[in-house]
Amino acid sequence: MAHTLIHHEDLLVFTQQVMMKMGVSKANAFCVADNLVASNLRGIDSHGVGRLKRYVEGIKTGYIVPDAEPVIEKETLVIASINAMNGLGQPAGVFGIKKAIEKASNTGVGIVTVFDSNHYGFAGYYAMMALEHDLIGISMTNSEPLVVPTFSRNAMIGTNPIAFAAPTKSERSWVMDLATSVVPSGKLEVYDRTRKKIPLGWATDETGHSTDDPAQVLKNLYRGLGEGGIFPLGGEGELHGGHKGYGLATMVDVLCGVLSGGNYLRDLKFFKEGKPSHPRIGHFFMALDPSYFIDIDSFKTRMDDMIVRLKNAERAEGQGRIFVHGEKEFEEQDQREEKGIPLDDKTIESLIGFSEEFSIDLKFIESN
Amino acid sequence: MAHTLIHHEDLLVFTQQVMMKMGVSKANAFCVADNLVASNLRGIDSHGVGRLKRYVEGIKTGYIVPDAEPVIEKETLVIASINAMNGLGQPAGVFGIKKAIEKASNTGVGIVTVFDSNHYGFAGYYAMMALEHDLIGISMTNSEPLVVPTFSRNAMIGTNPIAFAAPTKSERSWVMDLATSVVPSGKLEVYDRTRKKIPLGWATDETGHSTDDPAQVLKNLYRGLGEGGIFPLGGEGELHGGHKGYGLATMVDVLCGVLSGGNYLRDLKFFKEGKPSHPRIGHFFMALDPSYFIDIDSFKTRMDDMIVRLKNAERAEGQGRIFVHGEKEFEEQDQREEKGIPLDDKTIESLIGFSEEFSIDLKFIESN
Repeated sequence: MAHTLIHHEDLLVFTQQVMMKMGVSKANAFCVADNLVASNLRGIDSHGVGRLKRYVEGIKTGYIVPDAEPVIEKETLVIASINAMNGLGQPAGVFGIKKAIEKASNTGVGIVTVFDSNHYGFAGYYAMMALEHDLIGISMTNSEPLVVPTFSRNAMIGTNPIAFAAPTKSERSWVMDLATSVVPSGKLEVYDRTRKKIPLGWATDETGHSTDDPAQVLKNLYRGLGEGGIFPLGGEGELHGGHKGYGLATMVDVLCGVLSGGNYLRDLKFFKEGKPSHPRIGHFFMALDPSYFIDIDSFKTRMDDMIVRLKNAERAEGQGRIFVHGEKEFEEQDQREEKGIPLDDKTIESLIGFSEEFSIDLKFIESN
Repeated sequence: MAHTLIHHEDLLVFTQQVMMKMGVSKANAFCVADNLVASNLRGIDSHGVGRLKRYVEGIKTGYIVPDAEPVIEKETLVIASINAMNGLGQPAGVFGIKKAIEKASNTGVGIVTVFDSNHYGFAGYYAMMALEHDLIGISMTNSEPLVVPTFSRNAMIGTNPIAFAAPTKSERSWVMDLATSVVPSGKLEVYDRTRKKIPLGWATDETGHSTDDPAQVLKNLYRGLGEGGIFPLGGEGELHGGHKGYGLATMVDVLCGVLSGGNYLRDLKFFKEGKPSHPRIGHFFMALDPSYFIDIDSFKTRMDDMIVRLKNAERAEGQGRIFVHGEKEFEEQDQREEKGIPLDDKTIESLIGFSEEFSIDLKFIESN
């Protein structure tokens, strides 16, 4: 696939400007742009500026309120509940994790739920914000129903990610960021575009059983009936632990939806009966200060030690390398900060569209 | 397989007495017995009284200190760090979750780590203790290395379970309790005993690749070299998300081992260089009061609603029922409380051994 490269700082400014043209404040537009570009930098293109189109459409359609500001509904020394007022997910997310960090800096722990929010980008972004304060960061969100509970045939739960970041001393931080489904929906789209069959065990058709046809899965999911969908982590049935992924996805929905006061399960759709509707997505943030349990230098040294031991584990036959979580993304970021971010044609097309619609300059490094 | 039935109260008293004969205090012996029998009652026989043999051996060998009492090392209003003094895991676990519950009842949150502990039984036991206080309970532990990191050939991480329990109104509580591996090691043992092949994707031999031979996997694991092992949830490699299970297992080890100050990764063995050694296992407990985020009645009603919706999801073709987490175990408990707990021959044999060794009466309901 031909890719066009763009410098991450140019992409950041462009994305921020597009959001501002949509009525978003400069500060909140920065939250969105920084999150999307950070995702591209880390190689998680499924959550990068390709999403900008959906945010613009969400504002135009009305299910995202562009000028909303998050409001604190409840607050104690260790806990806060935030109403995102149906605004963009990123400003609400940044507000939420900052609150959690502030509380953890004072008491050792901060736990914050956010309700009535929207898609907040990649979960790891918020967890990683805790690192510069020498805190452990945790971030979760619920999301539109794409995943089928074990033994069901309908998408009922989101791909509900869990992100966890822990500070280190000499090694790079340990950053886990995973959807609780076998694969993200973006992966089905890639297979569909390249006309490849998907492996059995990734997704189900309308019967509730494994299929190798990504087009059918996507058609079922996006025509809005939610028939079939992606399997939870562990795959179909219980043989390989699919009920565990189903459990983890539900746990995320309990914390982000049921507990926060926002929507959960199939109420998370942004179209209901053909009409746009606030999805009322919820997030859960936690910051934890290791120094309340063990001195911080020991914690970071022990994290280094764990990471080094994992990297140096004996490799399976035919395998060149054992990774620790976050490592691939940090290496990708080094590359992309230097050489630019490669964007696919569909994303380029949407950015050029915004450039024309809003008269904002769009500067690429090169085309190939 | 022929099973002998025993009444759960008789089994509790018997187990407690065995522990007391080993020099464990009455209260601590109750913690162990109640946890093991509760596991049997819920149908999780892998963590039931079949484990008693290992605890007795651990005390005899010296890596479990029978008369240890947990000591608070650090404490604030929301956090505590507990030294289990290499005693039994159950009394330390009960001490830990009770501390977390006490703190959550005062401030909304309690987070407690425990270090220098031993096997604490089934993780869900502690999470469920929060329920009677209308709190969410979370419980995790690290454990002896049985799981291979993605692309490795050696068991480096435990099956490190995550348990999460949330209170409900009319429905039974939602209780998730899962090992972060594809299967627990007990499952390989069952296949081995019945001379069945295991499905590919469960475990690896010494090459680091999938095998269908459970005997080989167990032989490799328990001869102490830790070659091969069980795959993390998601299976071999990254195709079905094995790196996600590897991430979750590592996260549990960060919280239970690195953060607590106890052992992590391969240091968790209880034999090192042929000599017994305290495994210095660690646990992580959290209790969270939903009423700090949303009123408690709403929370419980919303939990009910979520559970009912999941149960009533449309079933996959050929499937009779969709379960929610904890449901199967509650139903098993009803059965076993009424009819007795069925024990397998190996467990019976070990109990009869203790009955003779310690002159304690052992009363079965019937043999068949």
